[in-house]
Amino acid sequence: MRKLFLLSAMGLACAGAAQAQSSATLFGVVDVNVESFNAGGVGSSTMVGNGGLATSRVGFRGVEDLGGGMSAGFWLEGSINPDVGEGRPSNSTNQPSGTGAAVAGREGFKFDRVSYVSLATTQLGELRLGHDFIPTHWSSIYFDPFNANGVGRAGNFTFAGVTTAPMSTQITGSNSISYWTPSKLGGFYGMAMIGTGENASGTATSRDGNFAGFRAGYAAARFDMAVALTRTHYEPTATIGNYTHANIGGTWNAGFAKFFALYNTVKVGLAGGAVRKNTAEIGAHIPVFLVGRIRVAYAVLDDRSDSALLNANGSARKSNDARQLAVGYVHDMSRRTALYGTYSALRNRGQATYTVSGNRAPLAGQNSRGLELGIRHLF
Amino acid sequence: MRKLFLLSAMGLACAGAAQAQSSATLFGVVDVNVESFNAGGVGSSTMVGNGGLATSRVGFRGVEDLGGGMSAGFWLEGSINPDVGEGRPSNSTNQPSGTGAAVAGREGFKFDRVSYVSLATTQLGELRLGHDFIPTHWSSIYFDPFNANGVGRAGNFTFAGVTTAPMSTQITGSNSISYWTPSKLGGFYGMAMIGTGENASGTATSRDGNFAGFRAGYAAARFDMAVALTRTHYEPTATIGNYTHANIGGTWNAGFAKFFALYNTVKVGLAGGAVRKNTAEIGAHIPVFLVGRIRVAYAVLDDRSDSALLNANGSARKSNDARQLAVGYVHDMSRRTALYGTYSALRNRGQATYTVSGNRAPLAGQNSRGLELGIRHLF
Amino acid sequence: MRKLFLLSAMGLACAGAAQAQSSATLFGVVDVNVESFNAGGVGSSTMVGNGGLATSRVGFRGVEDLGGGMSAGFWLEGSINPDVGEGRPSNSTNQPSGTGAAVAGREGFKFDRVSYVSLATTQLGELRLGHDFIPTHWSSIYFDPFNANGVGRAGNFTFAGVTTAPMSTQITGSNSISYWTPSKLGGFYGMAMIGTGENASGTATSRDGNFAGFRAGYAAARFDMAVALTRTHYEPTATIGNYTHANIGGTWNAGFAKFFALYNTVKVGLAGGAVRKNTAEIGAHIPVFLVGRIRVAYAVLDDRSDSALLNANGSARKSNDARQLAVGYVHDMSRRTALYGTYSALRNRGQATYTVSGNRAPLAGQNSRGLELGIRHLF
Repeated sequence: MRKLFLLSAMGLACAGAAQAQSSATLFGVVDVNVESFNAGGVGSSTMVGNGGLATSRVGFRGVEDLGGGMSAGFWLEGSINPDVGEGRPSNSTNQPSGTGAAVAGREGFKFDRVSYVSLATTQLGELRLGHDFIPTHWSSIYFDPFNANGVGRAGNFTFAGVTTAPMSTQITGSNSISYWTPSKLGGFYGMAMIGTGENASGTATSRDGNFAGFRAGYAAARFDMAVALTRTHYEPTATIGNYTHANIGGTWNAGFAKFFALYNTVKVGLAGGAVRKNTAEIGAHIPVFLVGRIRVAYAVLDDRSDSALLNANGSARKSNDARQLAVGYVHDMSRRTALYGTYSALRNRGQATYTVSGNRAPLAGQNSRGLELGIRHLF
Repeated sequence: MRKLFLLSAMGLACAGAAQAQSSATLFGVVDVNVESFNAGGVGSSTMVGNGGLATSRVGFRGVEDLGGGMSAGFWLEGSINPDVGEGRPSNSTNQPSGTGAAVAGREGFKFDRVSYVSLATTQLGELRLGHDFIPTHWSSIYFDPFNANGVGRAGNFTFAGVTTAPMSTQITGSNSISYWTPSKLGGFYGMAMIGTGENASGTATSRDGNFAGFRAGYAAARFDMAVALTRTHYEPTATIGNYTHANIGGTWNAGFAKFFALYNTVKVGLAGGAVRKNTAEIGAHIPVFLVGRIRVAYAVLDDRSDSALLNANGSARKSNDARQLAVGYVHDMSRRTALYGTYSALRNRGQATYTVSGNRAPLAGQNSRGLELGIRHLF
Repeated sequence: MRKLFLLSAMGLACAGAAQAQSSATLFGVVDVNVESFNAGGVGSSTMVGNGGLATSRVGFRGVEDLGGGMSAGFWLEGSINPDVGEGRPSNSTNQPSGTGAAVAGREGFKFDRVSYVSLATTQLGELRLGHDFIPTHWSSIYFDPFNANGVGRAGNFTFAGVTTAPMSTQITGSNSISYWTPSKLGGFYGMAMIGTGENASGTATSRDGNFAGFRAGYAAARFDMAVALTRTHYEPTATIGNYTHANIGGTWNAGFAKFFALYNTVKVGLAGGAVRKNTAEIGAHIPVFLVGRIRVAYAVLDDRSDSALLNANGSARKSNDARQLAVGYVHDMSRRTALYGTYSALRNRGQATYTVSGNRAPLAGQNSRGLELGIRHLF
């Protein structure tokens, strides 16, 4: 493995240093696909999308060895939408209103995924300052057979299911400090994170956007499992309130297949009564010769906040639950390039309008189906 | 020629691969000039502009050899405005309203020019998925002596002339799939492209933004010619309708000079009657010793949609046509750095208000003139 | 020192050049901190901020040797906010309204700091075209012990003090041309710059945003001093008018300490009477062994435009002046990585509401205090 040595940039405020040298890596993913969606009661649509297998991105990162087991590092990584040539929003203050719909044609590239500076020692672990994934999201990635991407992900329930919560604080957090345990703990690992909404004090919403969370797990050769929790404060209103996300999950590699299990519970403390939704998912990766793998997952959403709902005529309404079955195949053309196809069928009950597509919602209680065929290239 | 090997980034969804390695190229153009414009009946202005010789840009691209004549690749390239430190808009849905005026101070960098992933074989050609130039634009670049940049370009008629069509779908298209023929076809080459506006079905404008096109040509040692067509669907209204752009052009290198010819026809199917504008351009590059070239072009616009126009008093009105004569010199200080100067004079007739500057329009029927002196640097 | 050779990108308009090769450097700064502010009469707030020691940024730059003492170069550099994953605004037309508040979640990366192309000879100096720092800002950086960053900077008075002037034209200018003297002038150095607001002619505000300035100085082994002036035209209204910034400053390295002195005068020619504010600052860097330095600065603001102000009851009002004392320590863990801490206390008089934090202003006449603890990493 070779590294790239780039001429170091001396900050304006610093004396130049002739021997200074940096190791910065340019990296990224370009993943584009052709998608076809059917939204029950609405119709079909065929689109060109991206990120069906891995989120498209561009980034820069590096690590500097400081000697004595100490190191400093940075990571700057931003999402891109290569199907349309744009970047993606970042929520700078963790507020509910932080991530508005992008104005068409204007969403510039930003380091919305990861942007931090860090210090680490092999004995004590790592400290990161900046913008980063929240604790629960790591489990949403690692313990979902579809890695939180594309039509088959459990996130079709976990994230989109809670429409009153701001997307970005379900995935990343701004103004954060996180601590990561060192790697030599006999298989145990963990991290904890706090962040602030940076509101002015003295108002009812001054703590909005403050969050805290942790993730702890154990990994062995064939086994990995973790529990995680993230909680963000929002002063309760009719549409938003304290947002709590907890999950537990794991993987077990049996050789002929790698099995996945993930359980998410999301609660939003609205002023008019909390919304709580639980999602359970099981699935597997089944290797196909040496060049591919079948991916399959079944997810069930249990909306716990709808138990007392009635129809307009007073009859008991069916629970707003949903189920999703997804199957796909990934064909590795090389370590960097893969072709993939995923089919996902989502069945809504009651008034649920979950969708596999992210934005083409069916009518209430109707089904959603989607197919993605794409190319993912790493650099 | 040396290549840059960068440490490969493993996607979050992928197992790490110790031997993974990528070849990514950082590239770009910084082209800034001093411009002076005269808009007839309005006045003069002197500005600092950019992209007079080549569009300023920054990008990353790479190709991976997959063996057996197969390869995968990616290309991410975005426009910049180095005179003001900004990026440029991208039209994410190919809609007429997709590219609004940028909010002052806020237009971020994006990969608005090119962002695709591709698969290719030497025998079958290349398949690209993403955001890319539309077929007709390649001829607008290659067969215009001013390469679709600066005050002398034929695009002062072809693009700006059709004010009812959205700029970005005249140059690039989002949500596209394109096929490119392999290079070994005895001089013949071609590509075809389709794209979608991704509107929801079931409405009158559900097909708006869908487009299709092709480009086919033949190139030999001294000769190159091609025909191209791009058609974008917009449900006809008073200000927009199906947008069709076709062109044919070529170059012939006679040694003492390289000659250019380009014919564009643009039609917009408005609800109140189609607008059709034809532009013919001829020109040449004349080498000056080994370090420079004179560029000259003469373009004529024939507005076919104005034949029946009358003045307010009932008399026949002069056709809204226009002509443009441009001459320039490019001095190569190296393969990467060039100085350039271009002078362009545009004569409007009737009610035409075409301009060499892109934004300083003269009064109806008045002339427009512009001079650019600049530096173009490639990296 | 090693350089990175990247495969050169041939512009679309240029014939490919097999031997073309470029030297482009990827560089940047990631500086994130934990900040605590106290705004008198308002309250305290703890935040995660960035740029306390050096402005966080990402950039690309390079120089091409053209032979005969001549060279061409480019510099593209944009600010980032790694605490929130965003970029920063750029003022594209030097207008008062050019830099609005960023829409939450939407501020994309742009080359808002520096984006220029340049030509230079060792004998004649350098010519730059593009977007760059204005002359006075170089002295604001070099002659402030806190290098115009963080809670201790004199800029808490110089920049924020003149609330009617647009931030971006106090630091950078768009549409600019600048000339830099060659380095071999026996210690003398200088630069001059002009820029344009690019407004249409024939209106009262057609010259708004036009600016001009220069910087001239002398540097020896232990000594550096310079005088600078920048003036931007704005047609006088109640809230904006001609903006003039002049400063003089220097540093003297006595070995046991490096001393700093800086005097700024800022004038805004409002329609209702000019505002003039003078800031004097002295300070020092005191080396601590070989790995750190103490930074200390004392700054005094004299608001000259308030001399005739009266309170509502007719009594003479106290002058709206302010003072700031800042002390900090920078610990170099390597040439690239530093830890820093800065404490700054700002005392307002009269109706002044200056703040050390940039956005948490105290009540009129109350104090502002701030502490920053952070990490700065260069790459």
